[in-house]
Amino acid sequence: MRHPRNAALMLTVVKIGGNVIDNPEALDRFLDDFARLEGEKILVHGGGAVANRMLHALGIEPKMIDGRRVTDAETLRIVTMAYAGWINKSIVAGLQVRGCNAVGLSGADGDALRAVRRAGGPVDYGFVGDPVAVNTRFIQELVEDGATPVFCAITHDGAGRLLNTNADTVASTVAVAMRARLVYCFEKRGVLAGERVVERLDEAGDADMKARGEVFAGMIAKLDNVFAALRGGASEVVVKHADDLLNEGTGTVCANY
Amino acid sequence: MRHPRNAALMLTVVKIGGNVIDNPEALDRFLDDFARLEGEKILVHGGGAVANRMLHALGIEPKMIDGRRVTDAETLRIVTMAYAGWINKSIVAGLQVRGCNAVGLSGADGDALRAVRRAGGPVDYGFVGDPVAVNTRFIQELVEDGATPVFCAITHDGAGRLLNTNADTVASTVAVAMRARLVYCFEKRGVLAGERVVERLDEAGDADMKARGEVFAGMIAKLDNVFAALRGGASEVVVKHADDLLNEGTGTVCANY
Repeated sequence: MRHPRNAALMLTVVKIGGNVIDNPEALDRFLDDFARLEGEKILVHGGGAVANRMLHALGIEPKMIDGRRVTDAETLRIVTMAYAGWINKSIVAGLQVRGCNAVGLSGADGDALRAVRRAGGPVDYGFVGDPVAVNTRFIQELVEDGATPVFCAITHDGAGRLLNTNADTVASTVAVAMRARLVYCFEKRGVLAGERVVERLDEAGDADMKARGEVFAGMIAKLDNVFAALRGGASEVVVKHADDLLNEGTGTVCANY
Repeated sequence: MRHPRNAALMLTVVKIGGNVIDNPEALDRFLDDFARLEGEKILVHGGGAVANRMLHALGIEPKMIDGRRVTDAETLRIVTMAYAGWINKSIVAGLQVRGCNAVGLSGADGDALRAVRRAGGPVDYGFVGDPVAVNTRFIQELVEDGATPVFCAITHDGAGRLLNTNADTVASTVAVAMRARLVYCFEKRGVLAGERVVERLDEAGDADMKARGEVFAGMIAKLDNVFAALRGGASEVVVKHADDLLNEGTGTVCANY
């Protein structure tokens, strides 16, 4: 460690999804807010529709099973281009102009996030990886030097192979390893029970909501990531709308109270 | 500085071009050698044919004037995808498996290499940038932490705009700023006078060769970069075949003797 960390300014990992990335005005608003977020921070971004548009233009039909992309060799090339290339560097350049010293990373860079190719199970997802190791020293050094790592959802297996990885999982894995606060930004105001935003949610409450069928399909995997992160050691997980990043008291605060 | 640098192990900037990137066997051989190259090092890579193939598949006709790409907004997206995405991350993952702790960078990452959009002149090259500032502190810290920066030829203007930049120029600019040795790897054994490799070349010799018409067209811009780098303060520039990276006494050693 180069200098003592300020414990009051905890590291925050923020994840944004396609609803922000695909909307230039929403992305500009978000980058304004993220650049102003106090303390050490890391951004994780998903893919948005860019990769699907590219695949479509190239005559490759995107294949999704249960919301997860089936990634053959050609699809891996295209998603790596879209996520690690255009989206990641556009966000980094957008943060630089806002005075935030962003450094874009895939999991291969500095061996920041290593994964294993998913094997077995009923579905072959192709070149899809589940994270197994975070290079916390490398990330810590970047952060302590005043940089803001910006992760795309491309990892590597340490054997020369790039892998497509779920961006929510990248965010929760990095947050756990760094003992950070985690903020999932998405298109809703939080975890909803009907129209109402659930202000606080613990694992028992999550199980209750699921048992009552109150959690919509797209939210189940996200909440699984939320509680996996909390069990792993993330200090707090907040689920909120991207426009609410700086608004205290918004969204759903998930913890094991 | 975190620890005293070993002056005997000078920083080397190596640039590879499309002939290596477009040939998987040549790239494997090169990465084997580059990973074994002693001392601190930086890799700079050009684009190869990937971007042109993508543009072609998307029905966009690549436009080149005097060997330089005319980069409209859509072309910038595609070259950023290809260079900063697939090519950069493939090289980084390939170096990681060889025990070389690579970190891929565009000029936007860590504000590593800032450029200005080329304006005026008879040709509008579009989103093409000429380098103006290197963040030597950021690069130095990465290198001192044992990382090997891998630069693609995408820069930024500090105002949120990514720019396409000539990879030879990225290499010479970084080498000058870091007071490094520079090795241009390409498809020939060195600067050729007929069939013969010129072993040593200074600026007067370069001028003589050009006056005699001995320098082929594609080489003129590269030699301009070579001597600009030497005038700027690069300690030495070697032009050689990518397969000769570790072979002492090969290629053309350019210096102002």
